Amino acid sequence: MNSNLFITFEGPEGAGKTTVIQMIAKRLTEKNIDVLATREPGGIEIAEKIRTIILNPEHTAMDERTEALLYAAARSQHYFEKVRPALDAGKLVICDRFIDSSLAYQGFARGIGVDEVLSINEFAIGKKLPDLTILFDLAPEVGLARIYATDNREVNRLDVESLPFHQKVREGYLQLVERYPERIHVVNADQDIESVVEDVWLLLLKAMQ
Amino acid sequence: MNSNLFITFEGPEGAGKTTVIQMIAKRLTEKNIDVLATREPGGIEIAEKIRTIILNPEHTAMDERTEALLYAAARSQHYFEKVRPALDAGKLVICDRFIDSSLAYQGFARGIGVDEVLSINEFAIGKKLPDLTILFDLAPEVGLARIYATDNREVNRLDVESLPFHQKVREGYLQLVERYPERIHVVNADQDIESVVEDVWLLLLKAMQ
Repeated sequence: MNSNLFITFEGPEGAGKTTVIQMIAKRLTEKNIDVLATREPGGIEIAEKIRTIILNPEHTAMDERTEALLYAAARSQHYFEKVRPALDAGKLVICDRFIDSSLAYQGFARGIGVDEVLSINEFAIGKKLPDLTILFDLAPEVGLARIYATDNREVNRLDVESLPFHQKVREGYLQLVERYPERIHVVNADQDIESVVEDVWLLLLKAMQ
Repeated sequence: MNSNLFITFEGPEGAGKTTVIQMIAKRLTEKNIDVLATREPGGIEIAEKIRTIILNPEHTAMDERTEALLYAAARSQHYFEKVRPALDAGKLVICDRFIDSSLAYQGFARGIGVDEVLSINEFAIGKKLPDLTILFDLAPEVGLARIYATDNREVNRLDVESLPFHQKVREGYLQLVERYPERIHVVNADQDIESVVEDVWLLLLKAMQ
């Protein structure tokens, strides 16, 4: 069994990624698999500072290309300081959001172009993509309803975008599934959390075979 | 006479760019040419904040690709918020450092590769390069001696790099002159300031013809 894999989770806010990752990481640990669960910016000081600039709701003047470059910069730092060393140490790394977020949000939904955003991200992290990407698919209305119904949840500069923007993000993600059918697998996130965990678990077992 | 040009000044710290730009801008204004003299990050709030991350001497863990992406991000914001509108308004824009700094420092001296750094900068600002670039050429020893002899001068994370690094930067700049012979013109910065101003002025007059 190969557990030295880089697995990313994608999808909108409110899809349950964070909760599912915690449950999956616990299950992997119980099976004695050495797992690192992280998310950008992942506690990396430089990446955290970059993230603060990106998500500041006052930065309404931010150019969309600046935004895409900042995400790529934070990604590069988090990847080389945290993800790559863990992979080199033989761990299974789970990352909450990665390159496909930039492709769907900046490349597709903001309209910069998926190939253009891919190229700056290849500059950032090299051409190697994750071994497996699990897309939490969910109607944006459902995700947004969950966000706004949750007390004390941080609402950032992307969450407050319009519904059409979030619909474009979903469309962008689904186009990525067509582009990378071997890598990206879809999970229906509009189910109870236990069912989502089971679906994800089956995909993981298959990837580790 | 065409004074709606985008002109950039390049070269190491200590070469006298800032002083010369002030004198040149004054001269242009006296000739009733509407000039904007700026430098990255140029008082643009988002770009200033990005710059703070790049130049913080404590960020020794900064990945070189992160650094290059951050420069491109700050450049994009400064360009679209300040430079482009001034050019669209018919001004002559002088910018202290621009894309060639990234090509020489990150692309060549840090060893990422000039073409790779060019591609993320084209993402940032488009494929249009400055109309004229004036390179202040100077032996690094002379530039560094000037920096360290100046009281209260801010010494940043790049200034404190080794002499071999600064020699590579110079070599990188000179290779860019070969690559863009029409655009980049060299001025000997190891002369008294008045002579440098005269050399620059002649290049400007020629560009405006």
